[in-house]
Amino acid sequence: MPYRSPVAELRFILDKVVPMESLSATEKFAEATGETVEAILTEAAKLCDEVMAPLLRNGDLHPAKLENGVVRSSPGFKEAYEQIAEGGWVGIAAPEEFGGMGLPLTLSIAVNDMMSGANLALQLNPLLTQGQLDALEHHASDEIKALYMPKLASGVWSGTMNLTEPQAGSDVGALRSKAEPLGDGTYAVTGQKIFISWGDSDLTENVCHLVLARLPDGAPGTKGISLFMVPKYIPDENGNPGVANSLKVVSLEHKMGLHGSPTCVMSFEGAKGWMIDGPNKGMAAMFTMMNNARLNVGVQGIGVAEGAYQKALEYARDRVQFKPIIEHADVRRMLAEMKAEVFAARSIALACAVSIDLGHALKDAHWAARAALLTPIAKAYGTDVGMWVSDQGIQVHGGMGFIEETGAAQFYRDVRVTAIYEGTNGIQSMDLVGRKMMDEGKAAFRLLQEVEDEAKAARETMPDLAEAVWEAAESLREHTEFLLGQDIQDRFAGSVAYLRAFARVLGAHYHLRAALAGGEGSAYAKLAAVYIKRLLPQYAAALAEAKEGAAGLYALSAEDLGL
Amino acid sequence: MPYRSPVAELRFILDKVVPMESLSATEKFAEATGETVEAILTEAAKLCDEVMAPLLRNGDLHPAKLENGVVRSSPGFKEAYEQIAEGGWVGIAAPEEFGGMGLPLTLSIAVNDMMSGANLALQLNPLLTQGQLDALEHHASDEIKALYMPKLASGVWSGTMNLTEPQAGSDVGALRSKAEPLGDGTYAVTGQKIFISWGDSDLTENVCHLVLARLPDGAPGTKGISLFMVPKYIPDENGNPGVANSLKVVSLEHKMGLHGSPTCVMSFEGAKGWMIDGPNKGMAAMFTMMNNARLNVGVQGIGVAEGAYQKALEYARDRVQFKPIIEHADVRRMLAEMKAEVFAARSIALACAVSIDLGHALKDAHWAARAALLTPIAKAYGTDVGMWVSDQGIQVHGGMGFIEETGAAQFYRDVRVTAIYEGTNGIQSMDLVGRKMMDEGKAAFRLLQEVEDEAKAARETMPDLAEAVWEAAESLREHTEFLLGQDIQDRFAGSVAYLRAFARVLGAHYHLRAALAGGEGSAYAKLAAVYIKRLLPQYAAALAEAKEGAAGLYALSAEDLGL
Repeated sequence: MPYRSPVAELRFILDKVVPMESLSATEKFAEATGETVEAILTEAAKLCDEVMAPLLRNGDLHPAKLENGVVRSSPGFKEAYEQIAEGGWVGIAAPEEFGGMGLPLTLSIAVNDMMSGANLALQLNPLLTQGQLDALEHHASDEIKALYMPKLASGVWSGTMNLTEPQAGSDVGALRSKAEPLGDGTYAVTGQKIFISWGDSDLTENVCHLVLARLPDGAPGTKGISLFMVPKYIPDENGNPGVANSLKVVSLEHKMGLHGSPTCVMSFEGAKGWMIDGPNKGMAAMFTMMNNARLNVGVQGIGVAEGAYQKALEYARDRVQFKPIIEHADVRRMLAEMKAEVFAARSIALACAVSIDLGHALKDAHWAARAALLTPIAKAYGTDVGMWVSDQGIQVHGGMGFIEETGAAQFYRDVRVTAIYEGTNGIQSMDLVGRKMMDEGKAAFRLLQEVEDEAKAARETMPDLAEAVWEAAESLREHTEFLLGQDIQDRFAGSVAYLRAFARVLGAHYHLRAALAGGEGSAYAKLAAVYIKRLLPQYAAALAEAKEGAAGLYALSAEDLGL
Repeated sequence: MPYRSPVAELRFILDKVVPMESLSATEKFAEATGETVEAILTEAAKLCDEVMAPLLRNGDLHPAKLENGVVRSSPGFKEAYEQIAEGGWVGIAAPEEFGGMGLPLTLSIAVNDMMSGANLALQLNPLLTQGQLDALEHHASDEIKALYMPKLASGVWSGTMNLTEPQAGSDVGALRSKAEPLGDGTYAVTGQKIFISWGDSDLTENVCHLVLARLPDGAPGTKGISLFMVPKYIPDENGNPGVANSLKVVSLEHKMGLHGSPTCVMSFEGAKGWMIDGPNKGMAAMFTMMNNARLNVGVQGIGVAEGAYQKALEYARDRVQFKPIIEHADVRRMLAEMKAEVFAARSIALACAVSIDLGHALKDAHWAARAALLTPIAKAYGTDVGMWVSDQGIQVHGGMGFIEETGAAQFYRDVRVTAIYEGTNGIQSMDLVGRKMMDEGKAAFRLLQEVEDEAKAARETMPDLAEAVWEAAESLREHTEFLLGQDIQDRFAGSVAYLRAFARVLGAHYHLRAALAGGEGSAYAKLAAVYIKRLLPQYAAALAEAKEGAAGLYALSAEDLGL
């Protein structure tokens, strides 16, 4: 059975769990009604199931190649990309004035979820363009917007983000790329960037690089970093690709997975660039792009998990050992837990998306704070779920799971990078316990209060589940208070565990909502029971670890670690 | 820094944590003194570090190939294998009368741990031969022993196990291979076998297949299965390889990892075979081989974890982002937890090995029962640790971890199969809660009593750690009692979680022993604190899941899972 986009589950979540209604009630997104959602998801599903998914293994077997300095994408990718672009899927959430659909990010996120399950490597291309659109919308001059955004929103051009240099990964401030003013308002950008996804391709007629670089008088560290638009071909007076810019792809990386996505070493050699949003404001613009990308990367994990789950389910139904292996308790356990994890991560990601949209539509700081809080959780938990579920997907297949032809292994290899790029999951959790708690935990406590209130209200209807969710939320609240009293090093030492505990509580919260909406005996209620009874209890061990602090880790010296 | 075999840690564990002294105190293993251990490990480490480890990536980049029906192994493997064989490393634990060293299995396990970290694909070859030696020693006729065992123990010939057929994986009884008596005491074996590791190679002058097949009058299911020795070349009157037998390698699998180990589809076409241990006794002999292999596969996971840990540690020391990343709390956490997991899994595996040896040396049913109990735990937890630690190894490397040249990804890909072959980890946990509890839990309770007694005794010296271990053991004891009252389906539904809880408790137990032996402030005490405070708490969630039973899983129908 080929991949089928999870339209029904997405519809259910957007109806009942994190209702889109709150969006269509706003002026900005009045058009995002139930019918729109239905139409968008159904149409996108066709593209995912019929066009993108059949190319999944092509990307793995025939990686993108560098030929005479130009990236040739995997067979079939160009044709599929054209359909993505022509369908308007790149610009779903881009403003209508620049050729986008002007729909909520939430819908874009739902579509990206489906596309990631179909073909992660190909989906990464529009994902990056979407991040660039977001950055340009909020930080670029009107001129840049007018020139680039319509080309990007229509998918005729694509966008990349160029942050990393060999010595500057998580420490972005260590970057050495330079930008010299040319006197005409443009800059000559010089430097080497690594890990540039889709740094070049034959999918689009131009590739627009957003490059972080330092002005001659830029301060050291992140404060002196500016952002530049550096197109592969410099637009001519009509806005069409003109002369080639002074930049090139030096090489492509040999990666464990995601072979269909070319990961480029880029060299900028005095390439012409246009500054975005003023000198030394690079980090702010890059963060806009990155926040968008972080949520989207979380969704990549969820999409891959969906694909891996569907494949495992099919195998478990067909494969007979004594009986169809789906009838074996441990196999059924794996499948039920996989599905429950996907549902939880998907709900969290969509809750984050709705918060972002509400923040924009209502200009409401509370929703913006909610979105900021949920972003690292959605990213790290979504990609964790991608790894866990694709791992279980291999396990369900037994020996066949280790054979490449089966396809289970590709999910496992492809998704692994999602826990690393756009800030490793460790960086996400440091963000959660650091920056995202600088409001003294207000956003967190507000959310936990909602979780507790809903759980209390559900005590009559579903006492077991509701009680478990309430207890977990209450414990998380107490631990959050404790955490706020710790110094930052102690918080960091337990940050990954804390984020996982938070995700468990939120996952259980949305499962409980789904159970209440579906009603006693519904499939959603049964799935919620699996999550809340079998997986939620992990929060306690995670919080115990989160509380441990740094002392025990540093007691073990670097030398001790080498014994 | 290249791979260095963990001689010091192995020595410490065998001195203080699961003392080899108990073995050298027996008549059978009187020679296995501290000096012998030291000499063996030091000598083996040279081979691992200088010969095997440098070939690790060769196996990945240049997989074994099938050329004109013959498997050509990866470059350098043949020369390295010759040194393994000449050093006597294949036959460490084989009886001296058949050319082995006659040393305890425990030492063989320690050496295999080091070899697995150096080069898993190559190490798998002697591992399988060792399993075959074990099966022949306990089940073969004197004639077969005399003919085959010296050749196997010296590594001149290698051994394989042929169980799986396309329709018969975990359900071994579904096999269709046939053995027709030829009237001269030999049999014509016909059938297709899949997933045969090292089913052929150019490393040895002969390949000895132990093949499960059914006699013409063999009953259906596992009861009617017999075991046959089917050599690639039929030994001539001098015991040298003679005429080619009627068998061939049909193809090699394309796997996610472990490329240096050829995984063969084998076709036996009326191949001449010799029955081992009488008609319909195949499963018993195969279980001897498989139990040996299960512990060894657990050790493979541990070895890979060690290799992945060392690589990550080196990177974390060298890589600077703000400061050497080893100084970042979350990176240090990963490294400390990786090391703590490896230590725990290694101790459990060696405890299992010592139990096996004591069972043999003392002919003591209690030790045999202990060994039987520990085998599935050592296998599943050892390979889980292999996966977790190699996963964290990638994470420590950040983006570089996803690049194949770094080497972190190979560990992750290679080790994945260890959780599948020799019985998936799901099968191991079903074995634990099923067969291994058929003594009404006696072996488990006896072990837990020791854990609790030692923890009690340590309350004065290390109150925090001791109390935590005692509590966890007590909780595991209670849950084990509960489990024994459940029906088998309910046990199976929580078996993976139960096994993990058991492993956590045992890991903490051996860490506590190490802490007591090392003393307050020692590296081992600090490592124990990391394990007991940060990782042990996971037992509670695992036990909560173990208790849940099957009802909630089956409530979710196969249709619900497909929604």
